[in-house]
Amino acid sequence: MHSGRFYTLPEFVLWTRRVIYALTALAIVPTVLYQYFHWHWLAMPWVPIALVGTAAAFIAGFKNNATYARAWEARQIYGGIVNASRAWGIMVKDHVRHADAAAATAVHRELIYRHIGWLTALRFQLREAREWEHMKTEANYREYRQRYSVPEWETKLEDEMAPYLPVEEMNYIMGKKNRATQIIATQSRRLRELHEAGMIETLCYVEMEAQLREFYDGQGKCERIKGFPYPRQFASINRYFIRMFVFMVPFGMLKEFEKLSHEAVWLTIPFSVLVSWVFTSLEQIGSSTENPFEGSPNDVPITAISRTIEIDLRDMLDEKDLPAPIQPVNKILM
Amino acid sequence: MHSGRFYTLPEFVLWTRRVIYALTALAIVPTVLYQYFHWHWLAMPWVPIALVGTAAAFIAGFKNNATYARAWEARQIYGGIVNASRAWGIMVKDHVRHADAAAATAVHRELIYRHIGWLTALRFQLREAREWEHMKTEANYREYRQRYSVPEWETKLEDEMAPYLPVEEMNYIMGKKNRATQIIATQSRRLRELHEAGMIETLCYVEMEAQLREFYDGQGKCERIKGFPYPRQFASINRYFIRMFVFMVPFGMLKEFEKLSHEAVWLTIPFSVLVSWVFTSLEQIGSSTENPFEGSPNDVPITAISRTIEIDLRDMLDEKDLPAPIQPVNKILM
Amino acid sequence: MHSGRFYTLPEFVLWTRRVIYALTALAIVPTVLYQYFHWHWLAMPWVPIALVGTAAAFIAGFKNNATYARAWEARQIYGGIVNASRAWGIMVKDHVRHADAAAATAVHRELIYRHIGWLTALRFQLREAREWEHMKTEANYREYRQRYSVPEWETKLEDEMAPYLPVEEMNYIMGKKNRATQIIATQSRRLRELHEAGMIETLCYVEMEAQLREFYDGQGKCERIKGFPYPRQFASINRYFIRMFVFMVPFGMLKEFEKLSHEAVWLTIPFSVLVSWVFTSLEQIGSSTENPFEGSPNDVPITAISRTIEIDLRDMLDEKDLPAPIQPVNKILM
Amino acid sequence: MHSGRFYTLPEFVLWTRRVIYALTALAIVPTVLYQYFHWHWLAMPWVPIALVGTAAAFIAGFKNNATYARAWEARQIYGGIVNASRAWGIMVKDHVRHADAAAATAVHRELIYRHIGWLTALRFQLREAREWEHMKTEANYREYRQRYSVPEWETKLEDEMAPYLPVEEMNYIMGKKNRATQIIATQSRRLRELHEAGMIETLCYVEMEAQLREFYDGQGKCERIKGFPYPRQFASINRYFIRMFVFMVPFGMLKEFEKLSHEAVWLTIPFSVLVSWVFTSLEQIGSSTENPFEGSPNDVPITAISRTIEIDLRDMLDEKDLPAPIQPVNKILM
Amino acid sequence: MHSGRFYTLPEFVLWTRRVIYALTALAIVPTVLYQYFHWHWLAMPWVPIALVGTAAAFIAGFKNNATYARAWEARQIYGGIVNASRAWGIMVKDHVRHADAAAATAVHRELIYRHIGWLTALRFQLREAREWEHMKTEANYREYRQRYSVPEWETKLEDEMAPYLPVEEMNYIMGKKNRATQIIATQSRRLRELHEAGMIETLCYVEMEAQLREFYDGQGKCERIKGFPYPRQFASINRYFIRMFVFMVPFGMLKEFEKLSHEAVWLTIPFSVLVSWVFTSLEQIGSSTENPFEGSPNDVPITAISRTIEIDLRDMLDEKDLPAPIQPVNKILM
Repeated sequence: MHSGRFYTLPEFVLWTRRVIYALTALAIVPTVLYQYFHWHWLAMPWVPIALVGTAAAFIAGFKNNATYARAWEARQIYGGIVNASRAWGIMVKDHVRHADAAAATAVHRELIYRHIGWLTALRFQLREAREWEHMKTEANYREYRQRYSVPEWETKLEDEMAPYLPVEEMNYIMGKKNRATQIIATQSRRLRELHEAGMIETLCYVEMEAQLREFYDGQGKCERIKGFPYPRQFASINRYFIRMFVFMVPFGMLKEFEKLSHEAVWLTIPFSVLVSWVFTSLEQIGSSTENPFEGSPNDVPITAISRTIEIDLRDMLDEKDLPAPIQPVNKILM
Repeated sequence: MHSGRFYTLPEFVLWTRRVIYALTALAIVPTVLYQYFHWHWLAMPWVPIALVGTAAAFIAGFKNNATYARAWEARQIYGGIVNASRAWGIMVKDHVRHADAAAATAVHRELIYRHIGWLTALRFQLREAREWEHMKTEANYREYRQRYSVPEWETKLEDEMAPYLPVEEMNYIMGKKNRATQIIATQSRRLRELHEAGMIETLCYVEMEAQLREFYDGQGKCERIKGFPYPRQFASINRYFIRMFVFMVPFGMLKEFEKLSHEAVWLTIPFSVLVSWVFTSLEQIGSSTENPFEGSPNDVPITAISRTIEIDLRDMLDEKDLPAPIQPVNKILM
Repeated sequence: MHSGRFYTLPEFVLWTRRVIYALTALAIVPTVLYQYFHWHWLAMPWVPIALVGTAAAFIAGFKNNATYARAWEARQIYGGIVNASRAWGIMVKDHVRHADAAAATAVHRELIYRHIGWLTALRFQLREAREWEHMKTEANYREYRQRYSVPEWETKLEDEMAPYLPVEEMNYIMGKKNRATQIIATQSRRLRELHEAGMIETLCYVEMEAQLREFYDGQGKCERIKGFPYPRQFASINRYFIRMFVFMVPFGMLKEFEKLSHEAVWLTIPFSVLVSWVFTSLEQIGSSTENPFEGSPNDVPITAISRTIEIDLRDMLDEKDLPAPIQPVNKILM
Repeated sequence: MHSGRFYTLPEFVLWTRRVIYALTALAIVPTVLYQYFHWHWLAMPWVPIALVGTAAAFIAGFKNNATYARAWEARQIYGGIVNASRAWGIMVKDHVRHADAAAATAVHRELIYRHIGWLTALRFQLREAREWEHMKTEANYREYRQRYSVPEWETKLEDEMAPYLPVEEMNYIMGKKNRATQIIATQSRRLRELHEAGMIETLCYVEMEAQLREFYDGQGKCERIKGFPYPRQFASINRYFIRMFVFMVPFGMLKEFEKLSHEAVWLTIPFSVLVSWVFTSLEQIGSSTENPFEGSPNDVPITAISRTIEIDLRDMLDEKDLPAPIQPVNKILM
Repeated sequence: MHSGRFYTLPEFVLWTRRVIYALTALAIVPTVLYQYFHWHWLAMPWVPIALVGTAAAFIAGFKNNATYARAWEARQIYGGIVNASRAWGIMVKDHVRHADAAAATAVHRELIYRHIGWLTALRFQLREAREWEHMKTEANYREYRQRYSVPEWETKLEDEMAPYLPVEEMNYIMGKKNRATQIIATQSRRLRELHEAGMIETLCYVEMEAQLREFYDGQGKCERIKGFPYPRQFASINRYFIRMFVFMVPFGMLKEFEKLSHEAVWLTIPFSVLVSWVFTSLEQIGSSTENPFEGSPNDVPITAISRTIEIDLRDMLDEKDLPAPIQPVNKILM
């Protein structure tokens, strides 16, 4: 998530510079042919171009709507995890009771730490690369990535999870297919044991189980957004329509500038680059918002949010050495 | 679901090639009549065409929005089934208790396997053909289907369900109208028996019944999307407006190109094909997204998701011979 | 609900033929005056027409969005009733218990049959005519209605409900204002009696009461859509803007075709009919989707859905003489 | 709520007649100056006008979407109150039990009547005037109001509420800030007393309290729509853009009609009135839908809905002298 | 929240006056160069400008939709807090019971006052400044702020919270990272104590804990909107497209006015300012609605809403010295 006011124009131009090169080439070729080689038949009427432009604009707008909705839904889901986690905190502390305060505290700590372990497993799973994502395959994203770092790509899950789970449990979990799922299953087994041991009343036990179901809900919703991309059929026609359009733009402009004067035709170059850039940028902005868990600068900041949850939960346990909140790097908060 | 980056342009062109032939013929006829037979009255003013184009674009855009929403809702519903299934897993394991560990495990396995049986019945029901679907009736879809396969069309429900249900129950279920519905009803009867046998506390029993209701919810929502198509009145005018528009396009372009030069009129052919293709493609993309359970390459991947659920649930039972996740074939994940 | 692939073009033209006659007359008059009587001042500039057209298109688009949403919401609500009804089935069978199997079965049957009675009362209430609906007041709808039939208009509520309710209860219910509401109230009274008789545990009783509340929810939501039309202020300006626009279209086209040649002016007639027809059809399609319970071919198929519920519930009771699903008539499913 | 088919054109013109006068004056002035005084520099190019028109259309469309959503949400909320009220009816009748039938009936009646009292207090609160509402401040609304009447403005809350609450309770409630809120609080206190007296089981008591919370929800949501207008910053630019646009329209049309002939310039007057009227009407329709509880003809009919609830609840009590449903006056249902 | 009818035009112009200066300068320079220095090549064809304008309008419209949705969602969330708070009031009063009326009342008061303390902590947290907000960084906002005041910026949290929390609890809470979160945790601990002391039945205790979870939900949703801005990538291209467009407008108008007459070219200045102002205002209105908790005149009025809750809750306690509702200052309600 960009946590400042705006991406600066240089950042923006830098990010799209490869496209700008291509658009410039696309504009120079027909203009030169028109001016030096007098291929005047290259000038095209504007009407068909405007039609393709309309369709391209429509589909790009549609994509922006949809990808914005994906990002916002992702943020809502993770926000739901925050709320449910705080609720988990008070349920653990006040539903799990024991005459011996130390015994109670130990169990509270265990259940809350395991929850942080789940958050850790979840964020590592969500930041794994998928084929349709951009971060690892596209040059401009790879380049931009040097300005910040994705914590889940720099550390190992085992190391991050170790402080929160007992060793034998770590081993058991690391052997499972979907680790986050099985950590919740372990919480459930522990609740059962505590219920059987009489540390949780039945009614409270049922409520806490319901809370675990809510975590499954949050996790599953994240996985849905992660695993179901913006439909590739829409993404594909979007790309083809935009490309078709920017390819046609300089041919159409030739005639418009010719109407002014023969010299003005040279203005075709800057103006078709500019207009085309607006349309390709519209499309690229949509693409860069498509996948809110791909490690891009526009990601939902799940590392930072998980840290916030950790701080709040451990603050509930009245711990003193709380970790610091995650800070943005070059305005990018992960 | 297409699980790669883009449909390639050749794939796309191939898929729409019949339309391209038709559009080319539509463009050639008036151009030839105009150029060789001098039927100059064929040239039409652009204004009425632009109006029809606007209405067509609007209604195509509306369709894309609606069909995208259908696909996304279908994915959400199936995602909800994933989450509820995992919750079912922990409820079965921790709410159904017995002093004899082996007896408990047997019941856990039974309830979880029956749930996988339900998933199987459900996905077979959802992939049955309906009259308004495209996969079995339209040539371009039939053709494309050779690039991947729809598991529910290649195997038999009985065979797929057999590993998960006892034989006599299989026979009972196969005699029912809506099998998925009656499998859940069987789960409910079993819960009642377990409750009466004292293996489930009343409060937990009520919670598990509520979970069954949630499965009915998921199933019913899928059936709703399956059984209630994108309203045919909208689909119909969409088709007629688009056809009317692409029929008019070449007549309108004649005049636009005539303004450049008499030879340029021949450019009417490529350009009206191109413009028309953009509009017909916009409509076709919408159509191919309409029905998320029809076995198309743009389906919600319910076979793969069901497998994921199976893996997670059997992993909870600590089984060792877990099945492999479903892999995409030619980037198509079913 | 149209359950085929498309409304055919002849069906569509037939349905809108009165409008086509009017549009043709509207186009002939100014063209004849222009060509034969040389009233050349009739030709209008296109600019004001395009502006009115834009506003008309916007408001028609808005209406289509809203009416589609109404239809879809209606289908969702009825789908919710399906899901809740299946849940009712398993709750009745497994929560209502009695040592004597026959006594238990009798009560199960009673509660499930009364539920089917409620579904019957509900669908009759929903298909009563309202002033703003189209089916009984507009010629083209009345005409189209001969191609299919609306079951709730061909049979009597008493006859349809009789198989499902005891006689004295029928009389009591028929004397009430809102019958569906009072059938649920009767279910509630029966649950209370069964609870007092010890056939339902308190926790289960409370759950079943909650399920009745869900039926009130479904019913109330249907009544909301039935009783609160697409706001007439929006419907009214939609109609006036569209009419204003189609009235102006031929005057504007005169000039456009005059630019081609004097003979071409006659083309004003077909082309303004065509363009105007596109806009009036856009509006009519919206209108015909406005009221999902009015008995139109675009209705939510509540008779068929209710039958589906009946089949599923009686199949749960293991009855053998299940009724057949409702079939579409001329592709129209009610 | 308008409960007929359409606002008639005369009604519509009458309602907007002040605007029509103003638009006519705006169109006459420049045309006369142009024709008689030859101020030909008054003719403006159409391009900047079209741009402002586009922005105005966009923002008016946006407003219509938002206000429609407000009205629909308001109707949904009130529909939710209907459903919850019916549920309240069965809960009261079947959860509150007493060996003595008469004692039970008295309590049922009390709890249901107090609920009707709450509905009465709520609708009076919702129909109080707010500064941003139109009914009491704008001439065309005030005028239109003579065609129907707003019950909450013609009677006094005390008189309307008296039949449903005991006298001393009336006095207590009338002394409170938010009466509806405190009536629910009274219901809650009574439930507590009935619970303590053993007339309601704990589980049922908790469910009924939850139902009261649902009424708070419905009430609070209505108050939110009542108290948070369509954001005035959007309403303000909407108004300024539309005004700017209609002011510019006649200047732009001068030139368009001049192209036809010098006499045709006089047509500027009717056509710019017509085009401008379309845009101002678009805006006014939005405004008149903004506030669904302001007592306008487009209000959600909360008086009628409250009466429906009263009828259903008293019908549940098997009362015989049920009040009649509220009827529309001149098609306007309040 | 602006609680009047409209922002007046002078207010609006004043607020955007810096932009107007800039736009005027942008318009004067090319016009003067064109008229006095005869740089006629400055005149640009309108086609590329219209395209950029379309993209700019689209993205500005998209932003307005999204920011309106943010504001409305924020209002819904805070409305949800109102409803849940009233529910808290009746739960506290009727679920927490004690034979000794005075003891009961003391606990009721404590739980309700602590809740008001939570509301206070929450609104202070929500009105803290963030980097992407406008109020403290942009001149026009800073200037406008002198017309009203933001209570959370004028008083100290400790002073405002003091009347509602015991002293030692205040100290404990002030030492915590997220104070609102820990106040709810304290409520939960108190409920546990009251449950253990037998003042709350288990079922009621569980319900009240659920209500606390709902407060976490409300708080977390507010924090989500506060902490996740309208995505800066969209805000950035919006800004760049609008700027690009308004920069191009005067160049395009030169030619349009030149068509009328050479003197008319001077009209480029007022008209391009006007048109550009429409587009920049569209963007600025969106920006000023982006952050509903930044202390802007368009904020959700959380101070006033919190006061309303306080009044309602203390009125439930039958307190006599209720505080007055917050009044708008210069029509701005905070």
